[in-house]
Amino acid sequence: MRRIITLTTDFGDEDHYVGSMKGLIFGINADSNIVDITHKIPRHDIFKAAFTVRNFYRYFPQDSIHVVVVDPGVGSERRPIAVETEHGVFVGPDNGVFSFILDNAEKADIYEITNSDYMLENVSSTFHGRDIFAPVAAHISKDVDVREVGAKIESPVMLNISKPLDSADEIIGEVIYTDSFGNLITNITSEMLNGFTSICIDDYIIDSVARSYQDVEEGELLAILGSSGYLEISVNQGSAAERVKDQRVTVKK
Amino acid sequence: MRRIITLTTDFGDEDHYVGSMKGLIFGINADSNIVDITHKIPRHDIFKAAFTVRNFYRYFPQDSIHVVVVDPGVGSERRPIAVETEHGVFVGPDNGVFSFILDNAEKADIYEITNSDYMLENVSSTFHGRDIFAPVAAHISKDVDVREVGAKIESPVMLNISKPLDSADEIIGEVIYTDSFGNLITNITSEMLNGFTSICIDDYIIDSVARSYQDVEEGELLAILGSSGYLEISVNQGSAAERVKDQRVTVKK
Amino acid sequence: MRRIITLTTDFGDEDHYVGSMKGLIFGINADSNIVDITHKIPRHDIFKAAFTVRNFYRYFPQDSIHVVVVDPGVGSERRPIAVETEHGVFVGPDNGVFSFILDNAEKADIYEITNSDYMLENVSSTFHGRDIFAPVAAHISKDVDVREVGAKIESPVMLNISKPLDSADEIIGEVIYTDSFGNLITNITSEMLNGFTSICIDDYIIDSVARSYQDVEEGELLAILGSSGYLEISVNQGSAAERVKDQRVTVKK
Repeated sequence: MRRIITLTTDFGDEDHYVGSMKGLIFGINADSNIVDITHKIPRHDIFKAAFTVRNFYRYFPQDSIHVVVVDPGVGSERRPIAVETEHGVFVGPDNGVFSFILDNAEKADIYEITNSDYMLENVSSTFHGRDIFAPVAAHISKDVDVREVGAKIESPVMLNISKPLDSADEIIGEVIYTDSFGNLITNITSEMLNGFTSICIDDYIIDSVARSYQDVEEGELLAILGSSGYLEISVNQGSAAERVKDQRVTVKK
Repeated sequence: MRRIITLTTDFGDEDHYVGSMKGLIFGINADSNIVDITHKIPRHDIFKAAFTVRNFYRYFPQDSIHVVVVDPGVGSERRPIAVETEHGVFVGPDNGVFSFILDNAEKADIYEITNSDYMLENVSSTFHGRDIFAPVAAHISKDVDVREVGAKIESPVMLNISKPLDSADEIIGEVIYTDSFGNLITNITSEMLNGFTSICIDDYIIDSVARSYQDVEEGELLAILGSSGYLEISVNQGSAAERVKDQRVTVKK
Repeated sequence: MRRIITLTTDFGDEDHYVGSMKGLIFGINADSNIVDITHKIPRHDIFKAAFTVRNFYRYFPQDSIHVVVVDPGVGSERRPIAVETEHGVFVGPDNGVFSFILDNAEKADIYEITNSDYMLENVSSTFHGRDIFAPVAAHISKDVDVREVGAKIESPVMLNISKPLDSADEIIGEVIYTDSFGNLITNITSEMLNGFTSICIDDYIIDSVARSYQDVEEGELLAILGSSGYLEISVNQGSAAERVKDQRVTVKK
């Protein structure tokens, strides 16, 4: 079964950690197809992990298994979980990293991972990525039923995801993610822009949405509908993050 | 069909961008073999992308597909293209990233990508890597004929690649690429060194070509024929880039 | 034959070097399964490479081939070798990168790579990763017998791996590896902690071994048995490397 297992972690790319996870997965299912998403989630940044997962999962086949390990509570009481949805199976800690998935999925069954048959024999207290999440994902990729990993649970930990404030004459949103180009991704959707008159951030007032970065001169600020489906603030061939300090975005109606 | 699709971009390795491209490719052709070259081309550095492609393509099987996305003009008038050569198919923007390939290939047919059958349904204005180049490459890897992507075109954008100046008593070249070790790769070929008396860069005068880095003491500058086929200036176990400021290299005959 | 070939190098992820190695490997064995461990071993840091290999190899299937290229002596007299063990085949320079393997393996046959049939036609003097180690690994992955690469040799180069000093009332060990989280991995094993009274590093005195990072308050120093099997000094949600200057660790009995 050549099923995809994606990996999203904050382990970095300098140590053996990710390599050990891959060895373990291939040892269980030599035909699995491991895909690195990123190992550079800022350490312990659960929101960035959750938003990253939101952005990539829909582009993968629906039988994919997505392992997410940003896990400051490793070894403590936080639960390891597997979440079965119509968009694939998600494996990781119950700390909010699956908030967007649980919000968006029509069907989401959550199981607490407790069955040691699918874990490494000696589980360390610092590296559940290798000792629990990698082998569980590998076994599921070999068609172990997700229900085998443990009992079904309710009430997963959910992040408090900020939504824009919508009033009579304006919508007040904010920057929720800054990418490595310095593009500022806001929580304002395209529908919220219907009939807007201006977009304000910091001291900048923008009165149209660009169709491409090159609609403005090099080095100029612009607003654009980004590839994540949200309004983004960018600089043509530059970094909006270096230009803009205030993270609040106001759309005047 | 387990055909190779290589990826060379300036997307970095911190966001979901590369992961989303991979999901899309595997969704179209689950058997394709995606190979990351680098996602750390300096942002918008078309020359570095072009030189990187020059250096790796010849080591890949000839049915490989090479996707190169360093694309400051994304969403503007610049054309998306696919280039069919005897060394494989190259997919990316028409902005010069394929200059060395087009220079070296015996046969190079260039097609402007316009057929929306091979694109994502809703093409964003900021992420053609995911919305156009990844799916086009995936379809070609499933044996869609390159001619299906759009009409054949001429006159691709070509970078102006500097060549050394050759006079009666000297050849004046320059450093065209600095690698992450600090090795300085010049545009001087081994043939140009026939019968040379000295190689001059900055205040350094080098009178022989080393056979290995260890031909000189640790920390000393040397000249060597590098793995790209060009003369390189290096420091044994150090960085020539930190030592040398002037990028001009003179070979005295 | 879908055999795994892992890659551990100091080549970084910005240049074409690793990509060229992969192209060459797939050109020889299209079915091989290349797994990146890391390409960010600090330049020429043979000990870090050796310790990284020690930590991941046991998680891979036993028919895997592990290529390690941290090779300051490339092109000089140092020997290229292939090491056959019960844990897989290891390919790289004879400079100490396989010290832990050679220490741990029950059976280790070492062969000097001299057979040019398994090398690139023109071997450069600066890039044996591409010209020797990658093609040798690829041929072995296609079931070329390791003995074909060259004559069996003895006396490989071994690193001097420091062991703790054990006296009547204390054990004095040291930090041997700092990971990218800032965890300090020592050379003290769990057995050495039997009946200890305190663990001292810098001005800190720790009197118990934590079961998880969250056993202490956020920002506090702790001692824990790490996933490599050694005592580690960590900070809950912080970096021990930024806190602790002295690399010596004393366990009071």
